[in-house]
Amino acid sequence: MSPFKPEAIDLSNHLSDVSKARALSPLKGLQKYLDKPGLLMLAGGLPSPTYFPFHDVSANVLVHNSFPVQSSDESSTFSWFWKLLGAGTKEKTVSITVPKYPTRPEDINLAKYGLASGLPQLQKFVQEFSAKVYKPGYKNYTTLLHAGNTDAWSKVVLTLCNPGEGVFVSKWTYPSAMAAITPYNIKPVPVDNDAQGMRADALRTILIEWDESARGMPRSNLSGLKTTSLARKKEIYEICVEDDPYFILQEGEYVPKAQRAQRPSVSYDDDEKFIASLEPSYLKIDYQGRVIRLDTFSKTIAPGCRLGWYTCNPLFAERLERAAETSTQAPCGFSQALVTSTLLEWGYAGYIRWLKALRLQYTIRRDFMVDCMAEDFHLTVAPGTEGIWEGCQVYSAFTKPNRSVTGYFNEKTPPSSNALFDFVPPTAGMFIWLKVHFDQHPSFVTLGVKELENKLWIELAEAGLLLAPGVMFKPTDDWSTVKSGHYRISFSNGENAEFKKATKIFGTVLRKFMGTS
Amino acid sequence: MSPFKPEAIDLSNHLSDVSKARALSPLKGLQKYLDKPGLLMLAGGLPSPTYFPFHDVSANVLVHNSFPVQSSDESSTFSWFWKLLGAGTKEKTVSITVPKYPTRPEDINLAKYGLASGLPQLQKFVQEFSAKVYKPGYKNYTTLLHAGNTDAWSKVVLTLCNPGEGVFVSKWTYPSAMAAITPYNIKPVPVDNDAQGMRADALRTILIEWDESARGMPRSNLSGLKTTSLARKKEIYEICVEDDPYFILQEGEYVPKAQRAQRPSVSYDDDEKFIASLEPSYLKIDYQGRVIRLDTFSKTIAPGCRLGWYTCNPLFAERLERAAETSTQAPCGFSQALVTSTLLEWGYAGYIRWLKALRLQYTIRRDFMVDCMAEDFHLTVAPGTEGIWEGCQVYSAFTKPNRSVTGYFNEKTPPSSNALFDFVPPTAGMFIWLKVHFDQHPSFVTLGVKELENKLWIELAEAGLLLAPGVMFKPTDDWSTVKSGHYRISFSNGENAEFKKATKIFGTVLRKFMGTS
Repeated sequence: MSPFKPEAIDLSNHLSDVSKARALSPLKGLQKYLDKPGLLMLAGGLPSPTYFPFHDVSANVLVHNSFPVQSSDESSTFSWFWKLLGAGTKEKTVSITVPKYPTRPEDINLAKYGLASGLPQLQKFVQEFSAKVYKPGYKNYTTLLHAGNTDAWSKVVLTLCNPGEGVFVSKWTYPSAMAAITPYNIKPVPVDNDAQGMRADALRTILIEWDESARGMPRSNLSGLKTTSLARKKEIYEICVEDDPYFILQEGEYVPKAQRAQRPSVSYDDDEKFIASLEPSYLKIDYQGRVIRLDTFSKTIAPGCRLGWYTCNPLFAERLERAAETSTQAPCGFSQALVTSTLLEWGYAGYIRWLKALRLQYTIRRDFMVDCMAEDFHLTVAPGTEGIWEGCQVYSAFTKPNRSVTGYFNEKTPPSSNALFDFVPPTAGMFIWLKVHFDQHPSFVTLGVKELENKLWIELAEAGLLLAPGVMFKPTDDWSTVKSGHYRISFSNGENAEFKKATKIFGTVLRKFMGTS
Repeated sequence: MSPFKPEAIDLSNHLSDVSKARALSPLKGLQKYLDKPGLLMLAGGLPSPTYFPFHDVSANVLVHNSFPVQSSDESSTFSWFWKLLGAGTKEKTVSITVPKYPTRPEDINLAKYGLASGLPQLQKFVQEFSAKVYKPGYKNYTTLLHAGNTDAWSKVVLTLCNPGEGVFVSKWTYPSAMAAITPYNIKPVPVDNDAQGMRADALRTILIEWDESARGMPRSNLSGLKTTSLARKKEIYEICVEDDPYFILQEGEYVPKAQRAQRPSVSYDDDEKFIASLEPSYLKIDYQGRVIRLDTFSKTIAPGCRLGWYTCNPLFAERLERAAETSTQAPCGFSQALVTSTLLEWGYAGYIRWLKALRLQYTIRRDFMVDCMAEDFHLTVAPGTEGIWEGCQVYSAFTKPNRSVTGYFNEKTPPSSNALFDFVPPTAGMFIWLKVHFDQHPSFVTLGVKELENKLWIELAEAGLLLAPGVMFKPTDDWSTVKSGHYRISFSNGENAEFKKATKIFGTVLRKFMGTS
């Protein structure tokens, strides 16, 4: 591990004017007195805990091994899963309680609403997690709690970028990430990416053509690289913001149902091996503190937590903490208390066990959704040759020649028509992107892709299926080179019968829309 | 009640460029489909509630009438209070539970993490509260949940002000309120105030002298008035932001201990009479939607809630909701669920009962703190003649001629020296401001007030008493006309013995510092 060398890179050059102008902590002057034994603290405006109506808060929490981690247990998982949805089985839970006034000083204290940095027990937990799971490439990285990735992203961009500057983003980007920054005149600069992320060659082309005098240099980005200075180009990245809530949900390659039984079973008993099997975070190759990673409990515990953490260099962390002090302050106390109690109940190893199981659960869901596609469409598989899917196994979906035939992946039967849509089964996350070939639509030339995408989206919604249309994820309104419509379908939340119904609706509406039914 | 007349004032003129540039809700297009029965919602990225580890969350909550509301019950309150601090008495609580999957559709659902607007049950509650307690002067005001007043203030200023513009604030202002806006180059413009708030004559003087071309017009303010246009000056206010977490803690005039028994007892059984007895909100005189009021549960429930609400016109509310969607999103789900369950358990009347009792509790604390001052110092009382305390009953504190004499308010004994400090017992809130006469200090000319204020603050901290120094609340660094040092002492959180000790430390350190002991 390289020691962090402050002389190697001056991180303060990357702070925005707003961030530089933030005052030092008003608590700075007080800090040295806060630990004084017997100090009478009559400086603040905290109400008396005597009048907090919550005598204690408790919860019944699932045990850490509530779900299986081995795909060999898949069938038992499913039976368990279905039982759960039915009336019968009781979940195995453990009770946690946070009293207003704990008896032991090391316990979580509901009455003590702390500084913006949050509960010490939770700080310690996330610091350990980042160290063991992300293994940053330098020593003095730090972690700081925040109020969820959406707010954290917004704070990070305003900490790094001035108005008029740009942020490199993927061609398709999370809509809130763009909506958070564009009102401040910070522009998303789309960069081509392939399956593995932002393309270095595409980034280089943009930088060479960049008119620095006109718009300032792009400063940072959502899931890739940032440039120092066009003149030097010593490195292709400067500051990288890794907003990656799905890190742990790496589901691996999709294997068709018929071959799934032969999929080699991997042992996940060893946590180190499990972590090594995941694609690493940018933090791992970061030896200078250039990466700000955003983590959240929204996907692994519950979205209502509004709780997560940054992992980054101490300089940026201090500026981000100052930003929190004048806005969100500490994350919600109830959330901190309940999540921390759960994590302490489970322990670090228990939480890793929980995450392993979550990963398998979402893998099973991903597999089921693709299986549904394979039942409703005639699928062929071929390596992608261009764009974002270059080198991926691309699935093309055709109308089944004979719908009574239930065989799928029948590559010997030549398709009777052009493919309706393509997709790549995702290896991580909660979504499948469906790319619909609107260039085959009779009105392609007159209506264009944007209009067709919207029309089909509405027809699907009218038929009872709400997907997310590609337009929501497009950083610019330039459709000149776009030939396909895009729809994001989520397999994160729903029952199997609903996924089955969804693919049926999608097929029926799509075939009618494309004039092939 | 006047109907809201959109033609009378164009509120959209008051939006900042950032606010105007915020996208419409990405959910706008989806909204019409969301209520469709049986709709398959596969657009979002919500994780499956199956994997939320919280089976249910519950709390033991104090009953709404845990504390007395009548000052005649004061003695019983105290005995109850001391018993509580001792080991014995058990608080009377009621249990609330929020299950992940409630059985009745109208119940609060822990699994359903909603839109930025928050839980419908809580929205309804705060709407009712604002209507009945603040009685806005126009009809179509609205309420919107937020994540605490600090974040709300920051969002409001960025919604109304462009960089370079100013905000009128009191000469002494909450430090976080200034720290939130100055990094965006939005300047606090201090205006003289008297005991009742910002002075209209002082505001007028500033406006006449304002160089509009140089800095743009000041746009809004913390606790007072905002100007439209220097040229017109038809009204002295435009947009007023009322950040007033202490509304309900209106403690009334301090009455010295010896006369307190004769204080007329007021009946608070009638909620309407109770509300009518409070100084009204700016909302009550607002007939055009110019006021944005910020409310918080931080002072009345618990600061860790990070939960409150705006009351304002629908146009500003919509822009503030868009700002939340790309940053904080909905307030924390645990907090919403627990606070809402508590409020529904208590009911509107029960919450008002709770607030009445809180008000009395803080009145008792205020009285006790002033009583302590009266024990340690020789106090005289006279009407203030200038500045913020003009017309108030100003208490001046002298070294006691004979410390063994326990009599106080002995106005017949002439003070043996100059007053050490002055204060006005507050009629609302949680603080007493102490104004120390540094112009009597031997080194006044050489060191100046700022330095003396800091020195005494450190000596007090070293002696075990941490107060908030005036410098923290000063919007500018101009000390040329300031003759006194200021310290804010809080009576919100602590035991009586601590307040007694605090005044003793203050007296001892101050007398030594001023060279009078």
